[in-house]
Amino acid sequence: MSVNSFGRLFRVTTWGESHGPAIGCTVDGVPPRIALSEADIQPYLDKRRPGQSKFTTQRQETDQVKILSGVFEGQTTGTPIQLMIENTDQRSKDYGDIAREFRPGHADYTYNAKYGIRDHRGGGRSSARETAMRVAAGAIARKILGPDISIRAALIQMGPHKIDRDNWNWDHVNANPFFCPDAETADIWSEELDKIRKSGSSLGAIVEVIAEGMPAGWGAPVYGKLDADIASALMSINAAKGVEIGEGMGASALTGEENADEMRIGEDGSINFLSNHAGGILGGISSGQPIVARFSVKPTSSILTPRRSINEAGENIDIITKGRHDPCVGIRAVPVGEAMMACVLADHMMLHRAQCG
Amino acid sequence: MSVNSFGRLFRVTTWGESHGPAIGCTVDGVPPRIALSEADIQPYLDKRRPGQSKFTTQRQETDQVKILSGVFEGQTTGTPIQLMIENTDQRSKDYGDIAREFRPGHADYTYNAKYGIRDHRGGGRSSARETAMRVAAGAIARKILGPDISIRAALIQMGPHKIDRDNWNWDHVNANPFFCPDAETADIWSEELDKIRKSGSSLGAIVEVIAEGMPAGWGAPVYGKLDADIASALMSINAAKGVEIGEGMGASALTGEENADEMRIGEDGSINFLSNHAGGILGGISSGQPIVARFSVKPTSSILTPRRSINEAGENIDIITKGRHDPCVGIRAVPVGEAMMACVLADHMMLHRAQCG
Amino acid sequence: MSVNSFGRLFRVTTWGESHGPAIGCTVDGVPPRIALSEADIQPYLDKRRPGQSKFTTQRQETDQVKILSGVFEGQTTGTPIQLMIENTDQRSKDYGDIAREFRPGHADYTYNAKYGIRDHRGGGRSSARETAMRVAAGAIARKILGPDISIRAALIQMGPHKIDRDNWNWDHVNANPFFCPDAETADIWSEELDKIRKSGSSLGAIVEVIAEGMPAGWGAPVYGKLDADIASALMSINAAKGVEIGEGMGASALTGEENADEMRIGEDGSINFLSNHAGGILGGISSGQPIVARFSVKPTSSILTPRRSINEAGENIDIITKGRHDPCVGIRAVPVGEAMMACVLADHMMLHRAQCG
Amino acid sequence: MSVNSFGRLFRVTTWGESHGPAIGCTVDGVPPRIALSEADIQPYLDKRRPGQSKFTTQRQETDQVKILSGVFEGQTTGTPIQLMIENTDQRSKDYGDIAREFRPGHADYTYNAKYGIRDHRGGGRSSARETAMRVAAGAIARKILGPDISIRAALIQMGPHKIDRDNWNWDHVNANPFFCPDAETADIWSEELDKIRKSGSSLGAIVEVIAEGMPAGWGAPVYGKLDADIASALMSINAAKGVEIGEGMGASALTGEENADEMRIGEDGSINFLSNHAGGILGGISSGQPIVARFSVKPTSSILTPRRSINEAGENIDIITKGRHDPCVGIRAVPVGEAMMACVLADHMMLHRAQCG
Repeated sequence: MSVNSFGRLFRVTTWGESHGPAIGCTVDGVPPRIALSEADIQPYLDKRRPGQSKFTTQRQETDQVKILSGVFEGQTTGTPIQLMIENTDQRSKDYGDIAREFRPGHADYTYNAKYGIRDHRGGGRSSARETAMRVAAGAIARKILGPDISIRAALIQMGPHKIDRDNWNWDHVNANPFFCPDAETADIWSEELDKIRKSGSSLGAIVEVIAEGMPAGWGAPVYGKLDADIASALMSINAAKGVEIGEGMGASALTGEENADEMRIGEDGSINFLSNHAGGILGGISSGQPIVARFSVKPTSSILTPRRSINEAGENIDIITKGRHDPCVGIRAVPVGEAMMACVLADHMMLHRAQCG
Repeated sequence: MSVNSFGRLFRVTTWGESHGPAIGCTVDGVPPRIALSEADIQPYLDKRRPGQSKFTTQRQETDQVKILSGVFEGQTTGTPIQLMIENTDQRSKDYGDIAREFRPGHADYTYNAKYGIRDHRGGGRSSARETAMRVAAGAIARKILGPDISIRAALIQMGPHKIDRDNWNWDHVNANPFFCPDAETADIWSEELDKIRKSGSSLGAIVEVIAEGMPAGWGAPVYGKLDADIASALMSINAAKGVEIGEGMGASALTGEENADEMRIGEDGSINFLSNHAGGILGGISSGQPIVARFSVKPTSSILTPRRSINEAGENIDIITKGRHDPCVGIRAVPVGEAMMACVLADHMMLHRAQCG
Repeated sequence: MSVNSFGRLFRVTTWGESHGPAIGCTVDGVPPRIALSEADIQPYLDKRRPGQSKFTTQRQETDQVKILSGVFEGQTTGTPIQLMIENTDQRSKDYGDIAREFRPGHADYTYNAKYGIRDHRGGGRSSARETAMRVAAGAIARKILGPDISIRAALIQMGPHKIDRDNWNWDHVNANPFFCPDAETADIWSEELDKIRKSGSSLGAIVEVIAEGMPAGWGAPVYGKLDADIASALMSINAAKGVEIGEGMGASALTGEENADEMRIGEDGSINFLSNHAGGILGGISSGQPIVARFSVKPTSSILTPRRSINEAGENIDIITKGRHDPCVGIRAVPVGEAMMACVLADHMMLHRAQCG
Repeated sequence: MSVNSFGRLFRVTTWGESHGPAIGCTVDGVPPRIALSEADIQPYLDKRRPGQSKFTTQRQETDQVKILSGVFEGQTTGTPIQLMIENTDQRSKDYGDIAREFRPGHADYTYNAKYGIRDHRGGGRSSARETAMRVAAGAIARKILGPDISIRAALIQMGPHKIDRDNWNWDHVNANPFFCPDAETADIWSEELDKIRKSGSSLGAIVEVIAEGMPAGWGAPVYGKLDADIASALMSINAAKGVEIGEGMGASALTGEENADEMRIGEDGSINFLSNHAGGILGGISSGQPIVARFSVKPTSSILTPRRSINEAGENIDIITKGRHDPCVGIRAVPVGEAMMACVLADHMMLHRAQCG
């Protein structure tokens, strides 16, 4: 029950700080004889990697992942897979000013309250750098799930600007620096975020994750619900403040008739749902429809605009956070959201197989 | 890693079906020498109990809880506490019609897809009747947390009708059948829900749960985050589709300046936050501010309005769900939300004590 | 991670005290659509039931088990199975004398040291009465394992008297009150234990548990080793002080040549081991040979012979334990050992299926 | 519930193969603000390190441990501690012969049966090399337990030769290559093992682990018993076949009077036990007496003497295992046994604090 682990059978344990020598994770429970190499993992890390546009932190990390165990002659052996990425572009001096100060909205204060000590360099363990290992683990989860299950995510809102869902085009998602599925909205965001970035501010965002090709029957009652696990997984992402499945918070405004996903037998005998308000999960178990989840990401708390705060000595201060920060951390949360979904699904695939054969 | 258990150190395992002989739970990990009797638990069950107004199911259950173990001479002994409630007003015949049919939006279909068998009587294990045991466990969690931590919830939206937060009055919450903190809105809901009920429809809702008196420092990085555990706990409640902490999904629309909860040292040397956008949690750890969480509850899927569906034989049908259903299950979710928050906090209190003394 | 639970996927949580109203357990993770009724469980409980000969406690408990959940129309549903046995023959007054005294070799003192409170009636939670639920859970585990895996146990030593293994006959095991596979030794034990019983003393014993029909490949490295789980399961039985797999402690006295279980291909192409020093487990994983485990059971600590002790007031006392005690608790540990083996194997069967398909 | 992890709150996850680039572990749950550096860990690794006498494998590994996370400015931060040791003296070609053959008594066959693949180089994941990380984790556990709790182990039997317990002298333990507490027996073993080594054979052994300075009250009913956890921890050590607490298997031969650890109040009001047959644990909870545990280690299965076996092609073969093997793996199991005890106790210290404050 390590608090740095997640999953039941597909079990990931991460370690490492933003400015330590390396970060890494152990992925345990992986089925044997799956072809796996660094080349299966690196593309996902490259999507999340910082410094790829002016809209993400300028920290330069190549994020080259190494497999240190659990793979033999190109195949998984069923034993724990250790992944490691060396940190190369730490600039801890950037953080000297805030070693004894608490950034509002940041974990500085609470880590200090809990532990009485904190690695202040780049946020230490609370840094979003940890999410690189989620992405790496997610790549392994995808290999377990196989090619029939597709997991994709996109940014659907930045600040007050929502996409136009009628314009949704998955091909656009990787064609702009925001993972935006709507080319027109991407332009709006580009202009807006440039202003925000230059003014030393930041913006929040919403990520939508969709899993297609799902079989019915994965998940479980009552506390092991598939949606409860997705909620935990997405809320555990840095800066997440809300999680929705299907209609999400908006389900509150519907009537029973509106919300019912009616069913019909297709001409080929298949079972068809006429809508997907449920987001693919009923009673904690997958229905076979696409799983649709969303999570909100708050605006980066490290901003250049001065904010009132206090320091460890108990003095009032004004704080400006220098360093190399993302003006919208929601952008890089997109591949992280995909990865967490993949991990939850791989876990439930094995849980289902364990109990139901 | 039972899927019918939750919590790490404060560990609750529930069992039982809606129309079986009884429901119950084991609460393990409770500290010794806490005064406990049925009288500490029953008031919370009475709040959740069905049949108390025309706005909840007319099933009559006294929901009398019995303590079968773990308490000796009025005190907890540190050994597992077994709680049991006998079911008394099952009317399984009400469900005969749907034994082989799948209600849209209900777990009927997914349980069948997973297990190839289901106890159709009253929804079996997927029934919200299970939540009675959450409420009972929550009462024990409150005893562990002690009187300084207050956990209260209210219904803040029903269908499209939100409360006016300026009218919030905790005294109103128990003065109307909706746990509504705003007397004016309660009247609107009353009228609206009466119509819905008579028309055989149902409405969704949003519940807000607030924990006050929190110390700073409970919670943990990275996957054991306090907010990740709350998200899992609230999303595991029947019919929940979204979970928010603090600003929730709305955090996406804010700038970094707006979202920052600035801090100041008070005249008495205490640490004061000037706002609470974070909902009391930063980096997965409590800040000492009130914890504010919300969850949406979809409209009851068992409605009288005919809906298109299929049956186990793979035939298209129209389905009308008779039986005694809540026109708005969100109402009775209010004490359940409080209970889940209490359970998560009791668990983290012990986790924190374990690691940090 | 409840300390009153065991198993990973086949997960059992027990509750109840010796002299409370009832004892029970939740069995979670059971595959669906297994035929199950009380009649599948009761015979195993009857084997463990007290009061069946003059060699076990004279407490009269019918130990009638009830299934309260998880079974519908005679089949498991995949949801938690609750089993309960009502206590009927508590005589708590027998224990009035020792309410404030500590029996040497008993858990009285340590429960008090840990919790500052204890249910002294019949040993409360530390009573071997809890093992009835292990036996009940074991009966369900057997149903999961199916008829091809046979799990049997026998008493192979009582006090200093070992059986003659050349006389081993499984048919004898249920033909004497000791579960002794050697008719001659049973007679010796009968005479010996009668003396011990009359003198108010007690004897230790050794139980051997054998699982046949095992496939190769169940178990796991490194901490989830099949033998590590068996060791934990058997050592958790009341009064157990040692656990052995295969050669056990005696493996220390062998050379590598002696200990090697040589292998040969049989005429039918099957793989044959020429010996079974390993007790069916290599590297924590089953080899397909019979699993052979043993555990020692210390003599009952509740004896009539006066012993020096202390009481809660910190005074020196002499203590005599009245009540109805087993002169050799090892006897009734035989069905308990079988049950624990069954539970561990059912758990590993599902774990193996989860990872390796 | 990773099978490569152990502990509940003090949680260790290991990874790595004998001939991979490195081995390592994550230690999670460590309390904050404990002084820790590599120098606290290295001495224990040096005790276990191979190649230090002619009686252990001649593989030369410096086993230099690196701390990669969780420590900041010389103190633990409460976040996961990653330890890594690079492998430097792999000679995988030594194992080419056995890539497709199964050594009797070794995990070769069972890993293959389970996973359908195995890293045969040096035994891969099943190699005792993994125990280096147990020793490293144990060093951290000792820091948590503090100086008042002493955990020491010794080899008390090798092959048929037991020590004379009257000669027990802890000072001797580190003065001979066997961790033998009896100088005379050490000489006997030296002569014997030299013969065994030269003949290409191997010997079994027994390790005794003693924890002194224990408080009463650590541990838990019923499945989280301190002795059950010790049994699992020790049985998980490579080549272990039996585990004993206190009188162990010999408890079977005692009467209740003999086995009772009588108690008396000391002149200073302290509680004194007049014997320690229980090995310091009653009802799964520590009594405050020294905890005494033993485990047997089977003779190394990799021997030069030819044995009958089979290969992956299903052919009968004769097998001789070259390579650099320990003639008695029990020797290097001594520091491993200490480490496992330390880990279990640190875990239970925190578990106790969590529940009982």
